[in-house]
Amino acid sequence: MRDILVIGSLAYDTVETPFGKADKALGGSGNYFSVAASFFAPVKVVGVVGEDYQQKDREVLRARGVDLDGMQTAKGLTFHWEGAYAGDMNEAQTRKTDLNVFASFDPKIPANYRDSRFVFLANIDPVLQLQVLSQIETPLFVGMDSMNYWISSKKQELLNVIKKVDIVFMNDAELKQLTGDTSVISAIKKVPSLGPKYAVIKRGEFGSMLYSAEHGFFITPALPIEKVVDPTGAGDSFAGGFFGWLAKHSKANRTSDISWSELKSAVRAGTVMSSQTIQDFSIKSLLKVDSELYQRLESEHFAITGLR
Amino acid sequence: MRDILVIGSLAYDTVETPFGKADKALGGSGNYFSVAASFFAPVKVVGVVGEDYQQKDREVLRARGVDLDGMQTAKGLTFHWEGAYAGDMNEAQTRKTDLNVFASFDPKIPANYRDSRFVFLANIDPVLQLQVLSQIETPLFVGMDSMNYWISSKKQELLNVIKKVDIVFMNDAELKQLTGDTSVISAIKKVPSLGPKYAVIKRGEFGSMLYSAEHGFFITPALPIEKVVDPTGAGDSFAGGFFGWLAKHSKANRTSDISWSELKSAVRAGTVMSSQTIQDFSIKSLLKVDSELYQRLESEHFAITGLR
Repeated sequence: MRDILVIGSLAYDTVETPFGKADKALGGSGNYFSVAASFFAPVKVVGVVGEDYQQKDREVLRARGVDLDGMQTAKGLTFHWEGAYAGDMNEAQTRKTDLNVFASFDPKIPANYRDSRFVFLANIDPVLQLQVLSQIETPLFVGMDSMNYWISSKKQELLNVIKKVDIVFMNDAELKQLTGDTSVISAIKKVPSLGPKYAVIKRGEFGSMLYSAEHGFFITPALPIEKVVDPTGAGDSFAGGFFGWLAKHSKANRTSDISWSELKSAVRAGTVMSSQTIQDFSIKSLLKVDSELYQRLESEHFAITGLR
Repeated sequence: MRDILVIGSLAYDTVETPFGKADKALGGSGNYFSVAASFFAPVKVVGVVGEDYQQKDREVLRARGVDLDGMQTAKGLTFHWEGAYAGDMNEAQTRKTDLNVFASFDPKIPANYRDSRFVFLANIDPVLQLQVLSQIETPLFVGMDSMNYWISSKKQELLNVIKKVDIVFMNDAELKQLTGDTSVISAIKKVPSLGPKYAVIKRGEFGSMLYSAEHGFFITPALPIEKVVDPTGAGDSFAGGFFGWLAKHSKANRTSDISWSELKSAVRAGTVMSSQTIQDFSIKSLLKVDSELYQRLESEHFAITGLR
């Protein structure tokens, strides 16, 4: 079992869905990823919060064994996102983004973070993603996420990060925007030419698609969740489960040793964790995961797919 | 191996997609279903065409071994649908529907059709679906499709048919409209209370979902097709592959003997056939299926899913 380092947003989210509203609840890619990954392996977080960040929100991660030495506290308020979901709830409508302390974030990682083997660069400014990655000595497997905003505004910087990672996690629209394709299948096939050996498309209620030039596609559906209370954080929880599974179970000592079979199992772990996140607001439902629930969800996924 | 009876539309379609245009090309649910199913088992068609229906379009089905004794020729023109696909091509925009000879269709089935064991009621007026079904003596397994138009305009008649079938094939929007649910997972769970033991949701590029109250869900992705030329007929080809597989391979002599494992394999056959249909206009690509291509597509589906 190896450690995972994640850089991402640590946020307060205000979210409205047909099932209710959460007001300044714990959120952000860094938090969702950490909690999901902590179920499998030790996690170290790099990020910034404001003076309003509550002690109980630090404690909830510490209780999951997450290392917060890389979490800076800066003057000002914590990053705040406000959004809403309606209809089929597959996409959020952003109402407001207050960068707050994130606007001047200068990520420096603690000395004991530098030997991290598994690294996830969650969705933030690609300049910051690269700044963090360059401080890691010998990463074994590096993943990243991004969003339409960075694809439009900092494409070259984004491509510089993409070139250095092993796997990208994006949704259909982001991947099409990045490559300029109208077919998502064509788009994903172009990812290896940008650098990463692997790509994952996250498709919400429709599951996910893993691709490599060598092995082709591995496509698996999401669990059939009747009541999707709040989809926020599903993608970060997917990545957390994915990286957590690899850090815990992979036998690889070099990047090239990561096997297709390990990656398929990692996709399944990601699927299970994201299906849990969406059943309540914030990280509430995700925190309920334990061995028993995980095994139940995993066998449910087996039943719906027949996946070995 | 048992025969399959299908009632459906026999049409000329004018379709425009980003890849070109087909002008009055062979189409209709009855034709797509028949060609797809004919790869597995003998098919008997019930339907009506106009005086303009070309001899070569009869021959193409006869060459596939399809029995056309139940195909009536009426005064007037063949049913004509005109539509277009754009963007993600998941939904057709109908430009024109000329019912023509379908407006006064009175389906009577030949005597030698009455002992058909597998029956598919493709998307037409539910009154006609029921009229055909009532002429079958001892059906073993009956499926049906429908569309938003009938759900709005003839809901009670539709529910009368649904009550008598074993499996329904619908898409997300149709199923939600039928049950009044906003969650497709909740919607599909209500199907057994309407009569059918099984339901299939067809989700286009995202694959399909099979449900029964006893066995729960079986969800499988579509094949990753890079160039979707024309999605028309994908659903009917899916149903054709599904029924074809069952008619050829099922060991059942009574409806209750149809096993979950057989249904899962049938879903896979449907997936393979629909992935072929969408790669060209009309039934052009579907006609290219042979044992070798089928096996290749089937093992590709195995590779992307790990499905046993």
